[in-house]
Formats: sequence, structure tokens, C-alpha cells
Amino acid sequence: MGCTAAMNEFGLIQQFFAEAAASRAAAKNDSTLSLGIGDDCALITPPHGQQLAISTDTLVAGRHFPLETDAYSIGWKAVAVNLSDLAAMGATPHSILLALSLPSADEDFLHEFSRGLFAICDQYGVQLIGGDTTRSPVLSISITVLGWLPIGQAITRGAAQAGDLIMVTGMLGDAAYALRHQHSPLQHRLDRPVPRVAFAQALRGHASAMLDISDGLVQDLGHIAKASALDAVLNVECLPLHPILQQLPRVTSPSHDSALLPSQALAYALAGGDDYELCFTVPERSVAAVMAEAARQQVQVSAIGQMLPRQSAKTQVQLRLHQQPFVLQQTGFQHFD
Amino acid sequence: MGCTAAMNEFGLIQQFFAEAAASRAAAKNDSTLSLGIGDDCALITPPHGQQLAISTDTLVAGRHFPLETDAYSIGWKAVAVNLSDLAAMGATPHSILLALSLPSADEDFLHEFSRGLFAICDQYGVQLIGGDTTRSPVLSISITVLGWLPIGQAITRGAAQAGDLIMVTGMLGDAAYALRHQHSPLQHRLDRPVPRVAFAQALRGHASAMLDISDGLVQDLGHIAKASALDAVLNVECLPLHPILQQLPRVTSPSHDSALLPSQALAYALAGGDDYELCFTVPERSVAAVMAEAARQQVQVSAIGQMLPRQSAKTQVQLRLHQQPFVLQQTGFQHFD
Repeated sequence: MGCTAAMNEFGLIQQFFAEAAASRAAAKNDSTLSLGIGDDCALITPPHGQQLAISTDTLVAGRHFPLETDAYSIGWKAVAVNLSDLAAMGATPHSILLALSLPSADEDFLHEFSRGLFAICDQYGVQLIGGDTTRSPVLSISITVLGWLPIGQAITRGAAQAGDLIMVTGMLGDAAYALRHQHSPLQHRLDRPVPRVAFAQALRGHASAMLDISDGLVQDLGHIAKASALDAVLNVECLPLHPILQQLPRVTSPSHDSALLPSQALAYALAGGDDYELCFTVPERSVAAVMAEAARQQVQVSAIGQMLPRQSAKTQVQLRLHQQPFVLQQTGFQHFD
Repeated sequence: MGCTAAMNEFGLIQQFFAEAAASRAAAKNDSTLSLGIGDDCALITPPHGQQLAISTDTLVAGRHFPLETDAYSIGWKAVAVNLSDLAAMGATPHSILLALSLPSADEDFLHEFSRGLFAICDQYGVQLIGGDTTRSPVLSISITVLGWLPIGQAITRGAAQAGDLIMVTGMLGDAAYALRHQHSPLQHRLDRPVPRVAFAQALRGHASAMLDISDGLVQDLGHIAKASALDAVLNVECLPLHPILQQLPRVTSPSHDSALLPSQALAYALAGGDDYELCFTVPERSVAAVMAEAARQQVQVSAIGQMLPRQSAKTQVQLRLHQQPFVLQQTGFQHFD
């Protein structure tokens, strides 16, 4: 111990992130960021007429990403899943705080991790405004994300109306497939999800309710249905499936014995999780505007069902195939949870 | 897998925190909290003329608190260290987001942990507005804390002036002592630190620079000195030591052979960390106002040194004993880091 207390290696990591963040903040010159990383707190001056949207999400190695995931992708994904939460409200991303716990100060890892983290931050104009780096036996990344919304324009989960169409962006089940088929052409869908930030903002005023699909379509849509006190009907034949998933072995369904169903693909799409696509509800009068915006932004949008009045005290997400109740066969599918 | 996706036990924990938070939010009826926990993001409508102060801090079991720490204290401390970061800017606490990683859904632990967490939240009028609960081999708590400050009134680290007095609240080294002497009367100082929130707010307009002491006085004061491009002189005879620390064995200092110094106590006070007291600088004209406020709030405040112009290119924190340069003996002291 001496007068100049030596900084430990984790302090140095923190300093590394702080310096990278400070140079970016200087380049961006964001008038709302009054004080960036490096003090006890960051200071933000809220823009007039805006609400702050804020969320936090943790990724634990071996649980939220496979242990063999490359460091760049880990940095990318940790930010992406948080930006996806912002997108789910229709918010404009502003900044993140990073709580990084890692077993050792592995320089190669940190270099690639920070490259991935700053790449997605730069792409979405997001600043790193605070952080804490600690040693832990397990690699774990908690990120808090901040964004802005014009007051009253957030797209929450609880305002869907009976009759609204249920829509999703992109394709479902890709990440669940990639998790179980290493080095497939869909690997990037698991490792480097792309949050639907711009399209989500364009849905303000059009979508009645929205969230991002992180736990699987059925479970997540259930949140919209429950918060809106409605039921939801999903038409499984409308689920957007990547050609690779469509080519998975088909099986005969006992409830629809004329059809050969891609059961495993449907399981990935309905319950796979990690999609980070948007699921949202749209009143009929806004469908044309949504589809026009989708075309403008070249975002695939599929109508996959409809919100209905509740049929019982408990909210239900009903699956239908060609108008008939549909029960997905047990597929031995396990969540990566 | 079925239509009603079963919520796993960690989802249930998250729901438990969400419900506890929602009932508190309803009771408080805070007009700035437009949407609390339970959606993809929380929504905050910033009060007029205020800046947002935000910070994040992680506690890892066995690193930031002893493994045998009781669950109530862990919940308390995780919030306390974050509120201390807010206090260090002079901010008024508003809310927290909780990222909780734990090995198993241990009901007893969660009950006590949440009791401690909500006890300190309630005490400081803080709402839980977001969270994420995940399974991890290691208990780890990352909290992000939000607070408000009148625009331009934050007390940062970089505005100390040469000549300003260096002051601290409370007593230093208690937590470091408690860490090494289990079940001592100072145990609560390690387990349940009390953030100096109210006093810190009263220092706005008086203190020129401030931070909270988390890593040890010398290291933390070094941050103020460096950010302010100054040196700092600490008078070690002025360090506020608890009577228990003062009674630690005294040794003769080679540099001050007439004095029997409480070297171990000084080591705790200078480098022990985990104090969560405030260290701040005060221009002479504001000293009387600070001391009057300290008396009003019954907060112990000690003047322990002075900021000086830099003597070399590198910022130094100099220790002095009775005006003479002082070198603390090697004590075998180890950080709990």
C-alpha cells in the first residue's frame, strides 16, 4: 500500500472502456449527455417533451449464449438484446451502462468483446455512459439501456384491442435452430441479433401493443394478451419460417392427419426464444400504413393471428391450423433457459 | 411445451419482485413514474429543470461481501452502494433497476434479500422500476440507480480548487476492520452501509468536488485530485477513527520514532474501502455553512487535508503527520477486492 494506490487489472479494464466511451462521446457531442463515463454518475439533460425508457437485461455465459460464442458476438448480443427491449416500446436509443463480470482480465477476449459492443453502439448512435467491471467466476454481462420517446407515444403491452391483427417482423425460430445446429447458415441469427429499432419507431401511432420475442412467441404473445385482458389466436400456417426450417423433417399430425407438418420448425418458431423480432398488434385501420412502412424499410412483416375477447377468466393463446384447434406434438424440445 | 407456456422458477422470482414493486408504486403515486416494472421498459417523465443522474454497480458474492453475509444485508447493501454513488453527486434518489443472478430459487434467501432491498428503497423513497432475474453459478447483483439534480448543480470530481479543504463524513476504516474481525460491534458498517443521501444534497452549492469512498480514501481522493488537476495533502492525525480502531496495537513509526502510531487502523482508514462515506472539497468561504449543516443533520464531518497546486506532471496524494511527510509502514494489509 502506498500513496499512489495501484489500480488493479479490473480497474484498468474499466478505464479502457471509459476512454473508448469518452472519445466517442467527444466525437458525437450529444447535448443531452451532460457528463459521460468517469464520475460517480453520468448526467443526462432530458430533451424537452420526451420520456425516458429504461430497461436492464443480463446475459450469463452458458445460459444466454453458448460457452463457445466468440467474444465479438457476446459484446454485440449483450447490447442487441437490450436495444430490442427499447425497440419494443418504439423508443429511440440513447445510451447504455455496462456491468461486466468476468473470471480474468483476458486481453484478447476484452479486445474482441469491446469491438462487438462498440460496433453495435456506433451503429445505433448509442453511448456507453457508465459501467462497473468486476471479477467473478462466471462471465456475466448486465446492461441497462436508455432511450427517449415523445411523451405518451410508447407502445406498451396492455393496449391491444379485440380484433387487432397480430403481426411479427422477420422469421421465427432461427436462433433456436442455430442453437441446436452448430455452424449452420443461421448461426448469425443466434449470435448477432439485429434489434428492430427503426421499424419499431415507425410503428408509433399504428401498433396498439408490442414487445420483442425473447422467450418464444407463445409465451411473449401471452404477455400482450394478459396485459390487454384478451385472448390471442395464432394461425400456425402463417408463421414465417426460414427455408432451412421449412425443410426440417415433417411429421403427420394426429389432429390433422392429412397434413405433413414441420413440427420441429413450429416448435422453434412458437417457443424457441432468442428471436428478438417484434410481435405487435395492429387495428385494421392501421394495417395498410404498417405494411407500407414495412415495404419502405424492407422489413418482412407477417400477419399471424388476431386478438379476441377473453373466453374465460384466464387469458389464452390458442393455436389454429386451417381454422381448427391445433396441438403441437411433443417434440422433446428444450428451452435454452 | 403447450399453449400456456409454463413460467420457470426464475420467471416467478421476477414476477414476485414486480408485484412488490407495483404495490409500492401504486402507494407512492409518483407522477414522474409513467410506467413501472412489467413492460419491456419502464417510462419516466423527467421533472422540469432536472438532470438525470445514473450509475451502475455490481456486487459479487465472496468478492464484494463475505459469503456468510445474511441475505437481508446483501439486499440492503446492493442498494446502499448504488445510492452512495448518487449521493456522491448530490442527487435525489428516484428509482433502481435490479439485475439479479443466483444459483437457485432459494425461497428463504429471496424473502430476506427482498426484505433488505425494499427496506432501504422505502427508507429513501426509491422505486424498483425494472429488473431481470437469471440463474448463474454465482450470486451476483447489478443495480442501476437513477436520481435527479437541478440542472448544473451536480457535484462532480473535477472542480476542486487549490486551497480547498478536504473533508469526510463519519469514520473511516470501520468496514475494513469488520471484514477482518467477524461479529465485531462494527459488523453493521460492513454489511449495512448508510448512504449519505440527505447530507450530500445539502452540500450542493458548498462542496466543490465530491465522491463516495468505496475503494479506500487514498485511491478515491486520488480521483478528485486527478480530475481537478491538483495534488492533495492528507493529515493522517486528522483521520476520523472509531474508538475500536484507535485501540488497535500501536507501532513505532521509523519516520516518526517518537510516535506510537495505530498503523493498522490508519491502513484501514486510508485504503480499506467499503466505507461509503463522502469525501468532498470545500472552499474556505463555505466551510462554516458546511459545518452548520453537519450539526443540523448530526453528521460527523472532519477536515482531513487540503488540495494544493500540482507539484509535478503526475497528481499526488501526499500523507503528512504533524506537517512531515509520512510513509505508512507495510502492514500486510490486503484489499478485499
